[in-house]
Amino acid sequence: MAADANFIVTTYRVEGATDLEKKAKSIAVGLTVGTWTELPADKQKTMAPHLGQVVDVKELPPAADGTPRGEITVGYPVINVLPDIPALLTTVFGKLSMDGSIKLVDVDLPEAFEAQLPGPRFGVEGVRERLGVEGRPLLMSIFKQCIGMSLEELKEAYQAQIDGGVDLVKDDEIFFADEQAPAVERVKTFAALNREREEQTGVKTLYAVNLTGPVDQLVDRARRLVEAGASCLLLNVLPYGFDILHRLAAHPEISVPIMAHPAFAGAVYSSPNHGLSAPLLLGKLMRWAGADMVLYPSPYGSVAMPREEALGVAEHLRSEQPHHRRALPGPAAGIHPGLVPVLYRDFGTDVLVNAGGGIHGHPQGSTAGGKAFIAAIDAVTEGRSLEEAAADHPELRTAIEKWGVLVH
Amino acid sequence: MAADANFIVTTYRVEGATDLEKKAKSIAVGLTVGTWTELPADKQKTMAPHLGQVVDVKELPPAADGTPRGEITVGYPVINVLPDIPALLTTVFGKLSMDGSIKLVDVDLPEAFEAQLPGPRFGVEGVRERLGVEGRPLLMSIFKQCIGMSLEELKEAYQAQIDGGVDLVKDDEIFFADEQAPAVERVKTFAALNREREEQTGVKTLYAVNLTGPVDQLVDRARRLVEAGASCLLLNVLPYGFDILHRLAAHPEISVPIMAHPAFAGAVYSSPNHGLSAPLLLGKLMRWAGADMVLYPSPYGSVAMPREEALGVAEHLRSEQPHHRRALPGPAAGIHPGLVPVLYRDFGTDVLVNAGGGIHGHPQGSTAGGKAFIAAIDAVTEGRSLEEAAADHPELRTAIEKWGVLVH
Repeated sequence: MAADANFIVTTYRVEGATDLEKKAKSIAVGLTVGTWTELPADKQKTMAPHLGQVVDVKELPPAADGTPRGEITVGYPVINVLPDIPALLTTVFGKLSMDGSIKLVDVDLPEAFEAQLPGPRFGVEGVRERLGVEGRPLLMSIFKQCIGMSLEELKEAYQAQIDGGVDLVKDDEIFFADEQAPAVERVKTFAALNREREEQTGVKTLYAVNLTGPVDQLVDRARRLVEAGASCLLLNVLPYGFDILHRLAAHPEISVPIMAHPAFAGAVYSSPNHGLSAPLLLGKLMRWAGADMVLYPSPYGSVAMPREEALGVAEHLRSEQPHHRRALPGPAAGIHPGLVPVLYRDFGTDVLVNAGGGIHGHPQGSTAGGKAFIAAIDAVTEGRSLEEAAADHPELRTAIEKWGVLVH
Repeated sequence: MAADANFIVTTYRVEGATDLEKKAKSIAVGLTVGTWTELPADKQKTMAPHLGQVVDVKELPPAADGTPRGEITVGYPVINVLPDIPALLTTVFGKLSMDGSIKLVDVDLPEAFEAQLPGPRFGVEGVRERLGVEGRPLLMSIFKQCIGMSLEELKEAYQAQIDGGVDLVKDDEIFFADEQAPAVERVKTFAALNREREEQTGVKTLYAVNLTGPVDQLVDRARRLVEAGASCLLLNVLPYGFDILHRLAAHPEISVPIMAHPAFAGAVYSSPNHGLSAPLLLGKLMRWAGADMVLYPSPYGSVAMPREEALGVAEHLRSEQPHHRRALPGPAAGIHPGLVPVLYRDFGTDVLVNAGGGIHGHPQGSTAGGKAFIAAIDAVTEGRSLEEAAADHPELRTAIEKWGVLVH
């Protein structure tokens, strides 16, 4: 039923339900028309198009303690739902999210419904075009510290980062109280440094400024930041809500890529028995709502996501779809140059290599840290080993001495 | 440190951390200034006010499989955070939500920060004043069906509900596609019925209309609904985001109570090892952001919340606070008249008795269903047993025959 034009097809994993068919039926009816069997025949006729359908039920092996487990697939009539994420989530996992041990693992949308969601305005190709970079992973550096820093200090840190050759620089996502270096001032200052870099070297840079403030003013704020020269917006999507991402992405005047930060997402995807799967939350929903780039935990670092899930997120972000551009995955946290070969093997070329400590922690500083990464990225795309590349790139050699190389 | 003026004090439950002190320290530093020990002394001085503090660590008994468990309390400098829920959540549980087995169980705000959050505009007293009802729990009826119904059908169902004596009627939270009975038409139609009821009987009614649409237009939509005669707004807070509740509650022209629906909240509070505790999510955060009434699972029904948690939500909603009015808890799902004595014993007078099936499922219909509830509510507030009251109220007797009475 995945391709059905009339139904939003959702899959849940449930624990503890002894009668899966009954459970599925109660979901399909309860979350659409409310009651069915008691309705008079003529009312059933007018309500039928709004009635949910059981698509499939499947027993899964029981849990270790013998609790029965199963997978339930329900179709919700698309005519019940408005084309936005809040309506979608409320319909398929509003009340149901509170109904015991149940996890929403996947959602498939009818094409015509999906087409009404914005999707990424720029996507992989648009971001690459803005940067003029093809054929290799993109490199992003995160400020080491933002809170409490003056504009002058941030400017210096920004310059050190772009001198290392990074393609993007992003704010810390917890950068809210920025009186010393207000967002609009940072945008102007760093845009000037980006222009200088481009004039001198021909190389372009995107700066992802943290978009903060009252949610009903974020569109205006974004517009003002773009007017001031912003080249990219960073948004904490879960805390502000998916719908504001949708509205930003769909707004004609907000003509810059949007980078989604996964702050708070762990509260929703981490449990095996509750919430949403990571590929659905950070892959499908983020892309539908319009994220051009999505940061999330890599499978490697200290804050790690299981490998299969991290690849699942990337798969949903980058799969070819009829209506939406491909988005760029940024599997982050704990990334250092010695991880680049594995990252490249797992995620390929269209990936955002995103580093904080792995750049600033370089023994020779942030600029050298960036250079070490670029050398590593160039090496993997040319099919050379890091050890080989390190012979020509002292910064990479130093990085490898500090962090090592993750063996395939 | 709970009352400290400078710190937002947060408590986490963690599993699997063998060195709690180290874990706490890494949170306090990592989620504020980023790095500390490497900073030069003069920089440490300017950054010190922004540095998080470990307030307490406590070992808890290990999990059944021997995994160590603990409680960590961290103070975040309030100057790092803007006074809104997205900034708060991103700061205290942004990245951290993805850091393994960790649940955010409580947050205490400095008074001056809390005072900048709106809190309920009406609260318990304001809602009671609008209804002219004192000294007993309030009764709310939920439409049995909304999707697919015509305005005429809904009008009839509305009349049947208010004829039963309910104080409030609410839309189904999944009512998005309402072309047949648009929100503004429902508001006008039901407001007329409310006026008629008041003219004839002196009794007032609130109708909670489901507020839907693009999040950046919700303030305007709410304003238009209020202009059209809306008496209450229903909001799916989690799907739309806490900040839009904040902005609605703080808006001078949106002069009606706001009812928060817990749709999707189960995705955040249900896991023992991830997400937020229910009392924090549905009690503190909802009240801070401005909900006058909060619906959530009762401890009794099929979609149930553990009793202690459900009472904890109510405690946070109704505790006396220096800056915010008390909000009204609506422990819902599976409520029938025979549950009213236990509900009253557990939640007292300032509670919203919220019923769908328990009203519409009455053998004599929705009006009789409402009457049965009112008879039960009057009985408990007068200290009479339901059996006693049933002698004078045939609707209550019928309800008890169908559903029974939950024994204390």
